[in-house]
Amino acid sequence: MNATTPAHPQRTIRVALGERSYDIVIGPGLVDEVGPRIAALLPGARAAIVTDENVARLHLERLTLSLDAAGVEHRAIVLPAGETTKSYAGLTRVVEAIIEGRFERGDAVLAFGGGVIGDLAGFASAVVRRGMRFVQMPTSLLAQVDSSVGGKTGINSPQGKNLVGAFHQPTLVLADTALLDTLPPREFAAGYAEIVKYGLIDRPDFFEWLETNREDIFAGTDALIDAIAISCEAKAAVVAADETEQDSRALLNLGHTFGHALEKTVRYEASRLVHGEGVAIGICLAHRFCAARGLAPEEDARRVEAHFAAAGLPTRIQHIAGETPPIADLMDAIAQDKKVTRSALTFILTHGIGKAFIARNVDPADVGDFLAEELLP
Amino acid sequence: MNATTPAHPQRTIRVALGERSYDIVIGPGLVDEVGPRIAALLPGARAAIVTDENVARLHLERLTLSLDAAGVEHRAIVLPAGETTKSYAGLTRVVEAIIEGRFERGDAVLAFGGGVIGDLAGFASAVVRRGMRFVQMPTSLLAQVDSSVGGKTGINSPQGKNLVGAFHQPTLVLADTALLDTLPPREFAAGYAEIVKYGLIDRPDFFEWLETNREDIFAGTDALIDAIAISCEAKAAVVAADETEQDSRALLNLGHTFGHALEKTVRYEASRLVHGEGVAIGICLAHRFCAARGLAPEEDARRVEAHFAAAGLPTRIQHIAGETPPIADLMDAIAQDKKVTRSALTFILTHGIGKAFIARNVDPADVGDFLAEELLP
Repeated sequence: MNATTPAHPQRTIRVALGERSYDIVIGPGLVDEVGPRIAALLPGARAAIVTDENVARLHLERLTLSLDAAGVEHRAIVLPAGETTKSYAGLTRVVEAIIEGRFERGDAVLAFGGGVIGDLAGFASAVVRRGMRFVQMPTSLLAQVDSSVGGKTGINSPQGKNLVGAFHQPTLVLADTALLDTLPPREFAAGYAEIVKYGLIDRPDFFEWLETNREDIFAGTDALIDAIAISCEAKAAVVAADETEQDSRALLNLGHTFGHALEKTVRYEASRLVHGEGVAIGICLAHRFCAARGLAPEEDARRVEAHFAAAGLPTRIQHIAGETPPIADLMDAIAQDKKVTRSALTFILTHGIGKAFIARNVDPADVGDFLAEELLP
Repeated sequence: MNATTPAHPQRTIRVALGERSYDIVIGPGLVDEVGPRIAALLPGARAAIVTDENVARLHLERLTLSLDAAGVEHRAIVLPAGETTKSYAGLTRVVEAIIEGRFERGDAVLAFGGGVIGDLAGFASAVVRRGMRFVQMPTSLLAQVDSSVGGKTGINSPQGKNLVGAFHQPTLVLADTALLDTLPPREFAAGYAEIVKYGLIDRPDFFEWLETNREDIFAGTDALIDAIAISCEAKAAVVAADETEQDSRALLNLGHTFGHALEKTVRYEASRLVHGEGVAIGICLAHRFCAARGLAPEEDARRVEAHFAAAGLPTRIQHIAGETPPIADLMDAIAQDKKVTRSALTFILTHGIGKAFIARNVDPADVGDFLAEELLP
């Protein structure tokens, strides 16, 4: 971990995308720096803050104090918390509020919240006047390590999640790790699942480091800052190689085809399954599927499962509270996942820890058989 | 006109935008070629046709015959004709129909209609699954020379036109000039206003050629194909230099700040003023404004006005049917136009025919005084 393990509590990751390049700054207390940082990067720009009621109650005052101190004019659009906000109605509300505030192309939409707020505000910033500046302050661990890197923005369609959106890169991402102190433990663990994912894709050393440092990360020490920074770096590297997911970016979907299908079959009831938990189960399924087919060592599948379990995450379909989803429903949801090209199933499979690969012609019958074995009582 | 005046009835203009480059093909009968052309360019792709009731009634059968013959699977989404379709509700309808048809990223949205359909279908293709392929078959003269070149897509907000959208370049544009035979004369003339605009921006020879060939163009001879091709070429050159309108692309807005304000003050009532008519008046106002300030020869302003008048277009605010819009309303609409940067008025002004330039700090008081003179009885 030499090059990526620093001594300082604030770290900066550069996402290299030519003229769309930007910095992700990670560390405690960044909410107090947002004003001067926006003023320096976008002189004269105003800020349309998009946030939700929970984040606003806890942290909005500090944010606006920082903006005021730096002379950045602002206006806050406060939305109900929760996934239902990420809808056509939510988008319309944010877009119209931004227009009503007479924000211009050079002004910034400032997303201050978790993944829902980031995706929604990012999409709004992509479409108001065909594109405004976008600054992200992710407040959940999941958003800090995943949705705030890479420029994917969007809303849900009644027919499926994230089916409507845009690629729109931010100008700056500020991940204030101190804000994670107010995160419920279950959400922290769910975000951790995405951190583990980066080790499993192509960084076996990072996965090993996580096995050693998991407790420190959960305790919020500097190891947490390192884990977030390495995750952002890993995602940034993948995104830089394939910004609009024509090819290799699909690796980031490790565990996601199964995970999305599970989320769908429980109708996105957060009480039963949140996204990171679906990813944890999905990653374990992908590793067991590959182990059972002789593609990857059984030992690796066991190590992955043990690590998620130690982090308090579910690892099997049966761990989902309530009735187990029927295989037919899961298969139907898998077929509808947007990572489908010309009707062949695309999965991210693995040859073992740190050796994920894109498989473009997975036989649905094999997947069905595997799920049937998994669900044997 | 040597390099740009060909002998053949079909012409191809290449829009050079790096990996987003595409061809615009212009000529009669292209509706019968759409199937093989899509099949050749996007093998295996399906087509989601977006059209309106008028175009569908006149031409949809021929289009689908061509697609069928080439083995391109398709589905048509037929919308009410008119500007009100270019709304959040229209967008939602098109997006949901595309998703419901299980179209994928590599499939094409095929816009078959005028500017409203092109802008709406283009925006839908930009946001479904964060970006699908987009093919345009513009059926109005305005769409063939303006909205189908350059990648601007979008819908109207209740607060203003085109305030929500995306830059999304098509894969192919097919401008079938035979379809213009069914266009009402008033719409043809309105489209012609945008053709004239290209001469006035930076092609004085083209303007001169239009002065000589206007009647042939209106008669639908090969001069029409040439006029459309040169217009597309002119717009493509501007777009290639500044795709997302950071700077010089604003030249394309010659006459549009006044034009948009006029459209807004008559509440977009097409019976009183259509877009191209607003542009014609707007261009004349810009030339007279500059002549009055000694920036451009009075003679040029007179020539421009005479040309529009000969084409049957309005050239003065008083030519708009019904009550003349009050200056206060016009000034308010001008201030709200989206070509505003940090609250300074940006206008496209001119030093004479073919010599337009961007003026970033026009004094609103000067504009108000000029409009008052214009509206003297």
